[in-house]
Amino acid sequence: MRLSYRNLDKTKAGKILIKGPSVASLESLLTAERVKNYQTSTAAGWVYNYAAKAVDETSLNLLEQLAEEQQVLGKYKAVLDGVVMNPGEGRMVLHHLTRGVLGKIVRHNRKDIGKFYAEQNKRIAAFAARVHSGSIKGSTGKPFETVVQVGIGGSDLGPRAMFLALEQYVVREKKTLAMNARFISNVDPDDAAAVLASLHLDSTLFILVSKSGTTQETLANENFVRQALKKAGLDDDKHMVAVTSETSPLAKSPRYLASFYIDDFIGGRYSSTSAVGGAVMSLSLGADIFARFLAGAHEGDKAALEPQMRKNAALLDALIGVWERNALKMPYTAVLPYSQALSRLPAHLQQLDMESNGKSVNRANLPVKYGTGPVLFGEPGTNGQHSFYQELHQGTDRVPLQFIGFQDSQSGMDVVSEGSTSQVKLKANLAAQIVAFAKGSSNASEPNKNFAGNRPSSLLLNARLTPETLGALLSHFENKVMFQGFLWNINSFDQEGVQLGKVLTKAVLAKGNMDSALKAYSSLLGL
Amino acid sequence: MRLSYRNLDKTKAGKILIKGPSVASLESLLTAERVKNYQTSTAAGWVYNYAAKAVDETSLNLLEQLAEEQQVLGKYKAVLDGVVMNPGEGRMVLHHLTRGVLGKIVRHNRKDIGKFYAEQNKRIAAFAARVHSGSIKGSTGKPFETVVQVGIGGSDLGPRAMFLALEQYVVREKKTLAMNARFISNVDPDDAAAVLASLHLDSTLFILVSKSGTTQETLANENFVRQALKKAGLDDDKHMVAVTSETSPLAKSPRYLASFYIDDFIGGRYSSTSAVGGAVMSLSLGADIFARFLAGAHEGDKAALEPQMRKNAALLDALIGVWERNALKMPYTAVLPYSQALSRLPAHLQQLDMESNGKSVNRANLPVKYGTGPVLFGEPGTNGQHSFYQELHQGTDRVPLQFIGFQDSQSGMDVVSEGSTSQVKLKANLAAQIVAFAKGSSNASEPNKNFAGNRPSSLLLNARLTPETLGALLSHFENKVMFQGFLWNINSFDQEGVQLGKVLTKAVLAKGNMDSALKAYSSLLGL
Repeated sequence: MRLSYRNLDKTKAGKILIKGPSVASLESLLTAERVKNYQTSTAAGWVYNYAAKAVDETSLNLLEQLAEEQQVLGKYKAVLDGVVMNPGEGRMVLHHLTRGVLGKIVRHNRKDIGKFYAEQNKRIAAFAARVHSGSIKGSTGKPFETVVQVGIGGSDLGPRAMFLALEQYVVREKKTLAMNARFISNVDPDDAAAVLASLHLDSTLFILVSKSGTTQETLANENFVRQALKKAGLDDDKHMVAVTSETSPLAKSPRYLASFYIDDFIGGRYSSTSAVGGAVMSLSLGADIFARFLAGAHEGDKAALEPQMRKNAALLDALIGVWERNALKMPYTAVLPYSQALSRLPAHLQQLDMESNGKSVNRANLPVKYGTGPVLFGEPGTNGQHSFYQELHQGTDRVPLQFIGFQDSQSGMDVVSEGSTSQVKLKANLAAQIVAFAKGSSNASEPNKNFAGNRPSSLLLNARLTPETLGALLSHFENKVMFQGFLWNINSFDQEGVQLGKVLTKAVLAKGNMDSALKAYSSLLGL
Repeated sequence: MRLSYRNLDKTKAGKILIKGPSVASLESLLTAERVKNYQTSTAAGWVYNYAAKAVDETSLNLLEQLAEEQQVLGKYKAVLDGVVMNPGEGRMVLHHLTRGVLGKIVRHNRKDIGKFYAEQNKRIAAFAARVHSGSIKGSTGKPFETVVQVGIGGSDLGPRAMFLALEQYVVREKKTLAMNARFISNVDPDDAAAVLASLHLDSTLFILVSKSGTTQETLANENFVRQALKKAGLDDDKHMVAVTSETSPLAKSPRYLASFYIDDFIGGRYSSTSAVGGAVMSLSLGADIFARFLAGAHEGDKAALEPQMRKNAALLDALIGVWERNALKMPYTAVLPYSQALSRLPAHLQQLDMESNGKSVNRANLPVKYGTGPVLFGEPGTNGQHSFYQELHQGTDRVPLQFIGFQDSQSGMDVVSEGSTSQVKLKANLAAQIVAFAKGSSNASEPNKNFAGNRPSSLLLNARLTPETLGALLSHFENKVMFQGFLWNINSFDQEGVQLGKVLTKAVLAKGNMDSALKAYSSLLGL
C-alpha cells in the first residue's frame, strides 16, 4: 500500500466531522440492546464496550471512512515493518518488536533488531535467576532483597505503574515477590532521601535507567545513591546495573554489575516492554511474569491489526477519541480504572498520550488547525467518586470518560458486608456510574440535584488483572495513541517540547546566556 | 455589610471580562521589572508571584472591581461569623474554625463550636500521648507502631497528602516518626488486602473515618479489617478508633478504643485540619506537628482577609483563575509542585477544587451560563517535565499552570554532581520552565522545535516545606476555591453530584428498580 499523509481537515470524512454533526442524547440512545451490540472482544479476554459513547451509526460510518482515508492500518503495518515512522528524528518505531515479530524482519546496521530485543530479555532473565538464587550478592555478601529503579519519565512511570499493577497478583500466585521494588525519579533530593531511608542498602540492587546516559535527574540520583552506598561502607559498583543504549557512556562500564540494552527505536514512554521495564519487573516479579506480560501485549498488537473497525478495539477507541476531540470539541479525557492495582496507570497514560500527541505541527512540519492530544487525567474508582466526579456529573463542561473494570479481584481476599462482597460493590458502582453519566436524572424543584446526563463513557472489561491482561491493556492504549497520531497526521514519536526547558535550565546552572526575566526568576529562587 | 448575590455575567466587571479583553503576549510582558512587582508576600513566608500570568494593569483593575462587586471579602467574613453559607444543605461552613477564631463566637444548639473543635484536638493529643508512651497497647500487649486511616474522599486524600508532605520533615527533626501511617480507601478489596499484607496487625491501630458513619466503602473496609484482626487472634475493638459526628452510629460505641468528633459544618474536602486529619497526623507525626500545621493554616486564613487585592494572594489567585476560565476560556488548570513531598497534593486539590466548584447552578439554584470550576490535574516537577509537559509546551491548547517551589529541600540531604546540588538543579528547572512557557522560542526552519510561548503560570514560593508552610499552603488553596465560588455565585460547599451514583449503586445491589440499560451493564459485570 502506498501511504499518503493528509491533515484531518483535508480528508472528506474529517471535513464533515470537524463541523460537529449532531448525535441524539445518550438518554435516548442508551438501550439494553445497544449495550449488547456496541462492544467487541479483543486480545487476552478484553471487551471494549462503547454503548455509552456519544456516537451513532452515522458517526461510526464516518469514522470508519476516516480510518480508511488516513490509512491507519497501513501505517501501523509500516511501523511493524520498520519503515522510518518517526520523521522528526529519522527513526524507526519498534516498541512492538520488544514483544514479538508481526512484520518483516527489521534490521539496522545489519543487526536483526527483534533478535536483539529478545536477547536482552534472555540476558535479564539469566541475571535475575542468579540474583534470586543468591549467586550474585551484595558487596558484603548479603542476598539482594530489594531492587530500586532510578529513572525518570518513561524510565519511571510505565515500569512503576506495571509493577504496582502486578505486585499483589504475584504475592497471591507465588506467596511472595522475588524482590521488593522501589523507584527514585525526581531530581528533588527529598525523593532519593526518602526512598534510601526506608531501605537496607546492603541488600539493595539499583537499576540505573537512561537511554542516552545523560539524563540530568538520573545521573544526579545515581550520584546520590553511590554516595549513600559508600557512606554505608559498601562497594557501590557491586550494587548497580544499567539499562541504557549500547552507545551511551554507561554501556559496558565496569561501574555496573551488568548492563542491559535498548536503542533509539523505542521511545521512553513506549519502553515498559523493553529492558527498561524488563529489568525491574524480572527482578521483582520474576522473568516468567514479565514474559507473560509481553505475550499479552503481543496479543494486543495482533488484535490492533484487525481490518474491520467494529472489531478493532484500539482503533475504535482512537476514532471515538477523535470524534470527542474534534466533533464534540472536548479538550480532555479521564481514565478511571476500577482497580486499586491500576492506581498509577493514569499517570503513565498521561505521559503516553500527552507526550505523544500534544503537538501543533503535522508530520511535514506544518501547523495543524484542529485540536490534537487532549489533557488526560484520572484516579482509581471508587476513590474518584468521592472526589472529582462531582464536576464530571454536574460541571459546566462534559469530560469524556474511559472506565476499566474486572469481574474478579486480584487478591481474591474479600468480605461480605450488607449482603454483598466488596468486589460486587465495586462493580455495582461501576455499572451505576456509567448509567448515571449517560442518562442523568432530572429534578425540577431542586436544580442542584439535577443531573444533565449525556456524558459519554466507554468500558474496558476483563475477567481479572493478570500479566497477560495487563500487557494487552498497555498495548491497547499504545496503539490507540498511535492510531490517533495517524488520524491527526502528527508524529507521535518525538518530544521536541521537552527541549527548551533543558536548554534554559543549563543556562541557569551555568549562569550563562539568560534573558532578564530568567535572571530575575533565578534570583528569586536564590540561584 | 449587606451581602447580595449576583451571577458573574450580571456584574459590570464580569460582563466585560466574559467578552475576553485582549492582553499582550507574555513574550513582551514578562520583564525583570514585572517579576519583581507582580508578587506579594503572604502568610508563613509564602510569596505569590504572578508575573508570568496573562494579566495586565487593565485586567487586574477589572478583577479588583469584580471582587468588590461580588463582595468576596464580606462573604468570607460571613463564613467566619457562622452565617449559613452552604444554602443547599442549610449549613454553616466552619472549617476555618478548626484552626482558630477569626470572627464572632459561633454557636449551634448553644454549643461554642470553636471550643468543640479545640477540645477534640486536645482529646486527640492526649490519646496520641498515651499510645506513644505505650500506656495504650494492642490487644496482645504490643505497642502500636503503625496507624492506618480507613476513609475515602475527604477522609483520605487530604490527610494522606498532608502526611506525605511532612513525613520526611519529621524524620529529619525527630529522627523517626512516632508511628508509621498507611491508608485504605477504595472499596476494591485489593486495596485493603495489599495494605494489610504489609503490616504486623498486632501493632497496628486503625482509624475509621466517616462523618455520617454510613459511607459504603469505609464500612466495607472496616469489616475487612475487623475480620483480618480476628483471624490473627486479636481483639478487633482494641485496635480501632473512630472519627465521626456525634450523631453517627459509630459515635460512643464500645467497639472503638476512642471516638473523636467532627460535625456537619466541615465538608469532607475541608476536613484535613479537623479531627479527620488530626487523629492520623497526631498519631504518626505528633500532636505538636499537627498544632504547627493548624497555626500555619490559621495564619493563611488571616492573610486572606487582607482588603487590598494586590496583597491578598488567595484572592489574586482566585481572580486570575476566573480570568483564565471566563476571559481566556481555558477549561483546565495544572498544579505542579517542585517538591516530591507534595506528590499527592494535586490529587487533594483535584477534589478540593472540582468537588467545590464543579457546579452548573448558582446559589439560588438557577443555571449559570459561564464556565465554573476547571479540570485540575498535576504531578510533581521535575517528573512532569519528562511526561505531559510536551503537550503543555507544544499542544494545540494553552493550559494555565500553578508552580510551587522551595528554596531548600526538606531532608537536607543532597549531593553535588556536574557542579551543582540536586536542589539547585530542581530550582533551575523551575525557573527555566516558567520562562520557557511564557516566552517560547521560535524555530522557523524546524517548526517541530518551535515553542509558541505565551503560556501563563504563577509561582508559590517559600523557604522550606514545614508544618507551618504546609498549613498556610492548604489554607491558600481552600480560600482561593471559596473566593472563586463567590465570584461565580455558586455554592462551593455541597456535593449533590455524588448522589445519583449512590442511588443507582443501591438499586444494582438490591437488584431493585433498574432501567434496562443499567440491567444490561449489571449483567455484563456478572451482577
